[in-house]
Amino acid sequence: MSGLNLQAWMQPHLQRIEQALSAGIEAASPADLGQAMRYAVLDGGKRLRPLLVLATAEAAGDAAGGPAALNAACAIELIHAYSLVHDDMPCMDNDVLRRGKPTVHVQYGEAQALLAGDALQTLAFEFLTPQDASVPAAVQAACVALLARASGYQGMAGGQAIDLASVGRRLNEAQLRQMHRLKTGALLLCSVQLGTACVSGVPVAVQAALIRFGEALGLAFQVVDDVLDVTADSATLGKTAGKDEAADKPTYVALMGLDGAKAYADALAGQAMQALADSGLPEARLGALRGLADMVVQRNH
Amino acid sequence: MSGLNLQAWMQPHLQRIEQALSAGIEAASPADLGQAMRYAVLDGGKRLRPLLVLATAEAAGDAAGGPAALNAACAIELIHAYSLVHDDMPCMDNDVLRRGKPTVHVQYGEAQALLAGDALQTLAFEFLTPQDASVPAAVQAACVALLARASGYQGMAGGQAIDLASVGRRLNEAQLRQMHRLKTGALLLCSVQLGTACVSGVPVAVQAALIRFGEALGLAFQVVDDVLDVTADSATLGKTAGKDEAADKPTYVALMGLDGAKAYADALAGQAMQALADSGLPEARLGALRGLADMVVQRNH
Repeated sequence: MSGLNLQAWMQPHLQRIEQALSAGIEAASPADLGQAMRYAVLDGGKRLRPLLVLATAEAAGDAAGGPAALNAACAIELIHAYSLVHDDMPCMDNDVLRRGKPTVHVQYGEAQALLAGDALQTLAFEFLTPQDASVPAAVQAACVALLARASGYQGMAGGQAIDLASVGRRLNEAQLRQMHRLKTGALLLCSVQLGTACVSGVPVAVQAALIRFGEALGLAFQVVDDVLDVTADSATLGKTAGKDEAADKPTYVALMGLDGAKAYADALAGQAMQALADSGLPEARLGALRGLADMVVQRNH
Repeated sequence: MSGLNLQAWMQPHLQRIEQALSAGIEAASPADLGQAMRYAVLDGGKRLRPLLVLATAEAAGDAAGGPAALNAACAIELIHAYSLVHDDMPCMDNDVLRRGKPTVHVQYGEAQALLAGDALQTLAFEFLTPQDASVPAAVQAACVALLARASGYQGMAGGQAIDLASVGRRLNEAQLRQMHRLKTGALLLCSVQLGTACVSGVPVAVQAALIRFGEALGLAFQVVDDVLDVTADSATLGKTAGKDEAADKPTYVALMGLDGAKAYADALAGQAMQALADSGLPEARLGALRGLADMVVQRNH
């Protein structure tokens, strides 16, 4: 951990993320669509993906914390937020509670939730293409390319489709890993890639090590998610607990048992930490990434 | 019309659009999500928006028909297609027929339709950011910026939200115009802007005239749509006729009467043609844009 105090590191970054997201979603908007979007995005969420973007950019050399990484951080959170809004809808998971609040469709109705999710996705790409020349066009284009590919039908949306199709079916570990690599892993890996893309001249070997970090972390995140679905209660989780089992969804706990899944999460966290060591980046710049990886595995919600 | 044969002009362009869209949506995909996307996009649609992109790029000087304009053409069609998939869903218009076929949620179920729409939107931004260096990064970034702003909560999605909120309410002409400027007009205008953005060095005065063309055309399109909803039958339309009136939606026909709406559409078409003349572009390059504008006003579906 290089002695880094993660909370102290996170606090100003979280503030910048919240401010930028709030400033970028105007409540005054046609038919109050912006209000539903703000409800979905603001005042909630651990902001893991945006923090990963900023921590990676810092590790890769963006000491100044420039606008490119902040825009990318907001953009990936907006993609994450849109996916939650749509995932909670009655035709998908039909969930009524998210981050301790009624889900968007409960609060604003299904039609407005559908539109708000759509518009949150779009807004991600607005964030990546600021009109003030603060970010080079090459960085803008690279970030759009990464985020679109990570979240589309060969990425996150494809993983959600597998998830839907797999309810009540027994998946083996390879199939389960493929589902999660897309559904959750793609965006977590993309967070790391976006952070790297915002810094010029990162050596290919460093990029490759950071990608291995992102892949291991993404899988660890999902294994921990499956564990928490069994071990945590809804109040702590801020969403409905036990719903995977209730929906007869395949999980790592179902596959490996609770202890097996916990041990697997720890092993993956170890792989992630090793990848950081392999990157060759100065240990002094890796503290935030190590701290976030710890947080993913040790979280209780 | 400069003697241009619109059908002869359109035929090779339509072929390029269909081929590029088909090549860009792989049927082999996680949980067959790509198949639902292909169903939504291929073998149907007038391709008005992509044709406008290509015609504008040609008018502005892209005689070679480069990859930037073709990518942009596909991207805007994908945004249009996603909006139709979601618009047809039960929580929105609850429509079962589109382009003469069962709507996506009827064919594939609601959850898959929701995901397919989401992924079609994402794919638009993949098309705008090709990974083969065929399009300059500055053009990629400019196109993403235009398309995201035209389709988001301050654009198309905002217009849809107004539409939802206005069912059963009496809008005045200014409110109706605002709704349609966003819901339909924003993407039609954006088609013209994308075509211009794919050509370097288009003078500002030319861009301004083309924007006026796009605005007038977008409004004309919607007025004609309202007229057709009353005068055409479902078989010709390829979608359910009379549904605006059935849903008590505000329309130009309700506001102006049928003859008044027809006359207004003609007047708007005249404004669009005048804007082209004002652009100062050589008349020989404007034939396709004039032909498409004629087609919008004279179409019967």
